[in-house]
Amino acid sequence: MKASEKLFEMQETNNSMLCIGLDIDFHKMPEYLRYRDNGMREFLFSVIDSTKHLCCGYKLNFAFYEQYGLDGYKLLKQTIDFIPNQMLKIADAKRGDIGNTSKAYAKSCFEYFETDAVTVNPLMGEDSVKPFFKYHDKMVFLLALTSNPSSADFQRLTDNGKPIYQHIIEKSQTWAGADNLGFVIGATHPEELADVRELAPNNCFLIPGIGAQGGDIEAVLKANNEGSALINVSRAILYAGENEDYLDEVVKKAEFYSSALKIQK
Amino acid sequence: MKASEKLFEMQETNNSMLCIGLDIDFHKMPEYLRYRDNGMREFLFSVIDSTKHLCCGYKLNFAFYEQYGLDGYKLLKQTIDFIPNQMLKIADAKRGDIGNTSKAYAKSCFEYFETDAVTVNPLMGEDSVKPFFKYHDKMVFLLALTSNPSSADFQRLTDNGKPIYQHIIEKSQTWAGADNLGFVIGATHPEELADVRELAPNNCFLIPGIGAQGGDIEAVLKANNEGSALINVSRAILYAGENEDYLDEVVKKAEFYSSALKIQK
Repeated sequence: MKASEKLFEMQETNNSMLCIGLDIDFHKMPEYLRYRDNGMREFLFSVIDSTKHLCCGYKLNFAFYEQYGLDGYKLLKQTIDFIPNQMLKIADAKRGDIGNTSKAYAKSCFEYFETDAVTVNPLMGEDSVKPFFKYHDKMVFLLALTSNPSSADFQRLTDNGKPIYQHIIEKSQTWAGADNLGFVIGATHPEELADVRELAPNNCFLIPGIGAQGGDIEAVLKANNEGSALINVSRAILYAGENEDYLDEVVKKAEFYSSALKIQK
Repeated sequence: MKASEKLFEMQETNNSMLCIGLDIDFHKMPEYLRYRDNGMREFLFSVIDSTKHLCCGYKLNFAFYEQYGLDGYKLLKQTIDFIPNQMLKIADAKRGDIGNTSKAYAKSCFEYFETDAVTVNPLMGEDSVKPFFKYHDKMVFLLALTSNPSSADFQRLTDNGKPIYQHIIEKSQTWAGADNLGFVIGATHPEELADVRELAPNNCFLIPGIGAQGGDIEAVLKANNEGSALINVSRAILYAGENEDYLDEVVKKAEFYSSALKIQK
């Protein structure tokens, strides 16, 4: 099944655009689990088990696993494998390099980790992105306008009256169809999200920045204008609880976001 | 010792700006080594052993290792560990993400892999790059103008009469000093390399694109104008030989590039 179809079905089934970001952090997880054998794995698996009816997919930011070296890389693979296959698995890896190198990154994300989607940094242009699009059944989310304050440094420079992120959104639509191409658009810029939605009415947006980063849910939903979207919350759900009852807190937060992010019909 | 000092000393010692890119590829390495236990490791270690007097450092493009999953990740660590510590070890990872995530990537590259330098994609702006600069002893090479044909898609858009890569080069010099900040500038653009060298006279340039990608050595050296530079050759050296005498061919090619890339005094 195509990733875009899987996403659509899962959003219908669980009635939510919520995507949960599994940003593992040893120092933020419940203390009593930290020094157990495979404590990080136990923590992640328990969160997935307790929230899989509340979201349409999980986003794994590779950085948080890579910081733990080989053990982290192993944990990343195990965690992706543990997510039910009917849910969307997103490799938030922000990769991108010259053609033959991007081909190797695509192989890593899609064939080794077997994820359904990947985030890609498009700074190097078309030939750096094409090897990802060759996997026609997968979804490729290009960074367009990110949620961090410094996104203004380069993404908002303007050529010919149009910001760079708009060039990225317009040009890349000539490279791949809407079921293969999505964009990362930060929730911290709802006013621009509305403009971007007009530029790419049929593409899925991966929207981070809700929760810990402070994006406003109502403003985001309004700006998204019923377009296809995956709205990601990481820390605000994952680290909701500190004690042995952490799963109660995690589920409570996930229920809140799941319901606030019901699919728009 | 600071990475920038290590680089200077190694370039003096081996009298070359040559950096060898260890882009491992199962299908390109000598066939008779492919199906041996730890054949890739044997191949890489032998190349390092045979060329370490001819170059100032090694660049490891993470993609080529990541495509082999956990085994590749292990090989990446082993290979970096095998490179003599007086040589520059470059994590060509092209990472970059929001602040707390880049912090994790920096930890992976500098603390787990213990490399001296890293390539970073600056599209997300200052806060995405700062966590790398916090390692004051390390070198951070920002992608500015890359060697691939599609670098024109976005890197050459112009804001206020200046291409985006120039904005990257100018703005980032306010974030870190020259011993901490370098740039990736493709050898396939020697005419622009000269302009860029004027913009950043004291920063080290990591210059890929010589060899298999076709960049012209003489033109590059002239354009670089005796600035600090690491000139990278990967495939043209690594896969010079196909048979049991592959190391002869590897050394021959490495000698050619090493001598063509003598330090400019």
